[in-house]
Amino acid sequence: MITRAGYLTTRFGGYLHREVPEEDAELSHVGPDTPCGEYLRRFWQPICFSDELKDLPHRVKILGEELVVFRDLSGTVGLLELHCPHRGASLEFGLIDAKGIRCCYHGWQFAADGTILETPGEPADSTLKDRLYHGAYPTHEYGGLVFAYMGPPDRQPPFPVYDSFVRPGYRLIPGQKYFYPCNWLQIMENAMDPAHTAFLHTIVSGAVFTNEFGMLPELEFIETPVGMMYIATRRVEQNIWVRMVEAVLPNLQQVAPIWEDGHQEHSFSGPMMSRWIVPVDDTNTMFLEFRHASETEGLTPAWWADRAIMLPGQLAADSSEAGQRQPGDYEAQVSQRPITTPPACAVMQASSSQHTVTTPLCACRPMRIRQWTAGSCAKPGGGSRMVISGIRRCWHPERPQRRQVDDSGVSFVISHLPRKGIFR
Amino acid sequence: MITRAGYLTTRFGGYLHREVPEEDAELSHVGPDTPCGEYLRRFWQPICFSDELKDLPHRVKILGEELVVFRDLSGTVGLLELHCPHRGASLEFGLIDAKGIRCCYHGWQFAADGTILETPGEPADSTLKDRLYHGAYPTHEYGGLVFAYMGPPDRQPPFPVYDSFVRPGYRLIPGQKYFYPCNWLQIMENAMDPAHTAFLHTIVSGAVFTNEFGMLPELEFIETPVGMMYIATRRVEQNIWVRMVEAVLPNLQQVAPIWEDGHQEHSFSGPMMSRWIVPVDDTNTMFLEFRHASETEGLTPAWWADRAIMLPGQLAADSSEAGQRQPGDYEAQVSQRPITTPPACAVMQASSSQHTVTTPLCACRPMRIRQWTAGSCAKPGGGSRMVISGIRRCWHPERPQRRQVDDSGVSFVISHLPRKGIFR
Amino acid sequence: MITRAGYLTTRFGGYLHREVPEEDAELSHVGPDTPCGEYLRRFWQPICFSDELKDLPHRVKILGEELVVFRDLSGTVGLLELHCPHRGASLEFGLIDAKGIRCCYHGWQFAADGTILETPGEPADSTLKDRLYHGAYPTHEYGGLVFAYMGPPDRQPPFPVYDSFVRPGYRLIPGQKYFYPCNWLQIMENAMDPAHTAFLHTIVSGAVFTNEFGMLPELEFIETPVGMMYIATRRVEQNIWVRMVEAVLPNLQQVAPIWEDGHQEHSFSGPMMSRWIVPVDDTNTMFLEFRHASETEGLTPAWWADRAIMLPGQLAADSSEAGQRQPGDYEAQVSQRPITTPPACAVMQASSSQHTVTTPLCACRPMRIRQWTAGSCAKPGGGSRMVISGIRRCWHPERPQRRQVDDSGVSFVISHLPRKGIFR
Repeated sequence: MITRAGYLTTRFGGYLHREVPEEDAELSHVGPDTPCGEYLRRFWQPICFSDELKDLPHRVKILGEELVVFRDLSGTVGLLELHCPHRGASLEFGLIDAKGIRCCYHGWQFAADGTILETPGEPADSTLKDRLYHGAYPTHEYGGLVFAYMGPPDRQPPFPVYDSFVRPGYRLIPGQKYFYPCNWLQIMENAMDPAHTAFLHTIVSGAVFTNEFGMLPELEFIETPVGMMYIATRRVEQNIWVRMVEAVLPNLQQVAPIWEDGHQEHSFSGPMMSRWIVPVDDTNTMFLEFRHASETEGLTPAWWADRAIMLPGQLAADSSEAGQRQPGDYEAQVSQRPITTPPACAVMQASSSQHTVTTPLCACRPMRIRQWTAGSCAKPGGGSRMVISGIRRCWHPERPQRRQVDDSGVSFVISHLPRKGIFR
Repeated sequence: MITRAGYLTTRFGGYLHREVPEEDAELSHVGPDTPCGEYLRRFWQPICFSDELKDLPHRVKILGEELVVFRDLSGTVGLLELHCPHRGASLEFGLIDAKGIRCCYHGWQFAADGTILETPGEPADSTLKDRLYHGAYPTHEYGGLVFAYMGPPDRQPPFPVYDSFVRPGYRLIPGQKYFYPCNWLQIMENAMDPAHTAFLHTIVSGAVFTNEFGMLPELEFIETPVGMMYIATRRVEQNIWVRMVEAVLPNLQQVAPIWEDGHQEHSFSGPMMSRWIVPVDDTNTMFLEFRHASETEGLTPAWWADRAIMLPGQLAADSSEAGQRQPGDYEAQVSQRPITTPPACAVMQASSSQHTVTTPLCACRPMRIRQWTAGSCAKPGGGSRMVISGIRRCWHPERPQRRQVDDSGVSFVISHLPRKGIFR
Repeated sequence: MITRAGYLTTRFGGYLHREVPEEDAELSHVGPDTPCGEYLRRFWQPICFSDELKDLPHRVKILGEELVVFRDLSGTVGLLELHCPHRGASLEFGLIDAKGIRCCYHGWQFAADGTILETPGEPADSTLKDRLYHGAYPTHEYGGLVFAYMGPPDRQPPFPVYDSFVRPGYRLIPGQKYFYPCNWLQIMENAMDPAHTAFLHTIVSGAVFTNEFGMLPELEFIETPVGMMYIATRRVEQNIWVRMVEAVLPNLQQVAPIWEDGHQEHSFSGPMMSRWIVPVDDTNTMFLEFRHASETEGLTPAWWADRAIMLPGQLAADSSEAGQRQPGDYEAQVSQRPITTPPACAVMQASSSQHTVTTPLCACRPMRIRQWTAGSCAKPGGGSRMVISGIRRCWHPERPQRRQVDDSGVSFVISHLPRKGIFR
């Protein structure tokens, strides 16, 4: 009898390695009544850009639910269940008017809040429209994005405006929307993974950001009141370049500029963008972002304020060979399988006693789940920190010391942490 | 604990509405040994046009069964199981000859009735071909269509020639064939739905038939010996326009002309077409029609006798946006989901105590099922009525009275019915 | 109550014939831990051509396993599990270097034998790479093909060099690679089916080989130490043309020339090609071949030594109609269904008391399975025979006698067998 294992301890051992790693369904599934699906529904989720709502309804799939979003002629934005409650025809074919949307098939009319306004063709004495409602979700527009709250009505939080959204001297620019055919979690993990900026985006594919990303940074991971951050510190000649990316749980990334190279000394500044990783369903994910552009020339490059410009390294390559020659985030994340495991496979599971720094988000899973259940990090406005990126001349020639660079209005001090961070 | 329901009674209640409506499998499933599949097999079903049978075999899928239809060189039409009983190769690649069809792979030859004529390559003393048969179904050609009987051999009915098929002064023209990727029942329902002609085909998409269809008609639904009809009555200036569409159960529609506008007074005439809604499988459906064209100029427009002209509003739009701007039957019916529910969803189920006139066919389901089991409506030739469409000047200025217009050889009197019809 | 059966004994009996034949999963399934999957893994399987391994890794799927094959810059060929053991990214996007391949995502590096060489980004004191291995399989290059052994390490056989591979005066030319979307077994069966060369490739589709293939041959089937052969004997004017094709179990075909016509007298010669029928998964199969070309002009036609020339009748037709007008192996084999049954359906099962000569391979299934279990035919180098094709003038005018033609170094005598062969 063959003994097979989840990890291998011999050369040429493929035959002995049969266990396909399993996904962590508690975190990866997003539909109604799943643990993480319900958790994600406690947060306002972006569903489209405001300027996508014109004269035609817009069909979307969010958290596994088929929906239609539209702006009626009075300006109200509605998010309704896609299928008309009468005969099931899709409301994406509906007629928008001043009061709401009218189904193409028999003309039933619905308001943005789900009120059934008219049921032509029904008996004149029908009370149906007075008693029943179509499924609807509340919406909120901010920064050029349309957000929805799809959770329990009695738990609806105010829309959270983080400090980074209202930074003096900056304006918000709705950016790009794009899709990956894989689970949301392996994408969200990527945001907390500073090592891949050195390999994937620089060493392997050539410098798609700047050459200086090719250095493997000193790494720390810290918990914040709303999630976690990494702190990647590189020495660039006589400078110390401290770069942070923040994960606001469950699915917002605040990403430091990718155009920096560490040569230009400056104080800490905030993120270049706030990007939501919105699950379409268990194996498809939508990216929606707004960008932070300084109103003063120079702090952000001109191209970043041009919404049509795409962040490099994000989209699928034009061909299979092009993807092999210059893989980017799409190739690295989607190719992990439609739903990967965190950590991805058996080698990592076998090494669970020594947590790896490149899978930090999931490494803190048990702690997070407890927080989620307690609702402690669901508090809106709990506060992102603007401590995202700073570059300072280093006095100590041997070793970066980050205590020297906490000089930009930071409300907490980044204490010096040992390299392997909090995941011991 | 959240209480969720099949229908909603609050605004913004999407979260509370989780039950996906279930299909009515008793009516929607069409394969062998399903209730409706067996019922549909009791009727002659059209499978293709006669003139599609040329020098190559024609592969079809009907009621979930993979089949091949061909005309041998002696003129006999055969409908056989697709896969050769020898090694399984598809007979769509077979050679047609005077006696039948020969498999491409090893040359086994089959007659139209399933007789195995030759088994080359088998031992000379093989008795296989004398003992066994390949699966075959009887066929019948009528009106340019090829029909098949796929039911139990001992229950085979004669081919039903309805009165509308042999109307004096009319000829039958094989028309169009097209496919919808959804269940047959939501398509068949549409035929008994007069309200959608006002909304979908006129108000929403602009008048694809005539402007006068845009009035919501007075509606009645009556049972006939072979199914049901609706009677849609509109007042057009001083005229009363009575338009009927007949559902000959299970899956034949006889449809009144769509080029009428109610302005031209005339007696009752028959359908413009007889159209079968043939299930390919549970989630794909084929439309096959013949048209009724008057041999005298003027009673039908010239374009209708041109087989290449398609009925407006039937096919999928050319693009996603075109479908949103001018949705037709394809968009309204297919978008209900691959298999919808009759009535489509929870709102309707919640209102079951007051039947809606726009889902009449399924509302009579229990009655129908009893009839089907008893076989009472399976009698061929039981008789469609030619009372399909008539326009008369109205003497009473206030209210249409249909007793005034029963003047065209109708064998039953249409009594005046209250608006909500028979479905109380 | 309807009585339905797996075979039919009446005309127009399609309704009574409902049992869909089942596949023989014991032989058709190829994944790990399936009977035939494990059997196939006991043999070296070709996975690609040597010259496909250039600067980019090459993704393959073999026996249901996702793998990557590459040649490192030192020349060593590696076959590794596709997904990086760290985060699961596909190694098809990896960087090849002198020691192995480096994952695009975080730069982990693997040698061809599965050794983990580097884990950048892991803690400096990590012992992970010293303790664990990535899944790998041993490879071997021969005749321009790359072979892999994917079975249990302790059962690895030497690579089998059959006599046909080292025939004096011949050289091996890597040929074509192509794919069929169906199970491997119905393809392998085709190789042991001499009747289809008369029908499919000559009578039905016109002579894609030579006209003389259109005669139905006298047939014999013999077991060999490594599988089986058929002997197809045709009389061509005064000549006896004896043509054999060998199945080296489980999945190697050695095929006699298809350019012969029986008119030119010559001694027995060997196969024109050795072709492996490699399962990709249960419903997809890869053909990989090398060709045998004589180094002396004339024994093989010039076109056969041109690797770019495809064997006729093997690929899918360019259109649906073209496939119907000239079906080839692709149409005949793929159209049997994704996984067919051997014998294909109920008619054959009903005739099991008189085995048909056109399904010989599976007819010997029980015997084979016993051999496989015992490992008796897994012996490499057990010896193919070069007795593949010969043409001799016939002294007896009435009847071919094959004892007259055993004159080419054949180590066993082909005794005269009755027509129906060994399958009684």
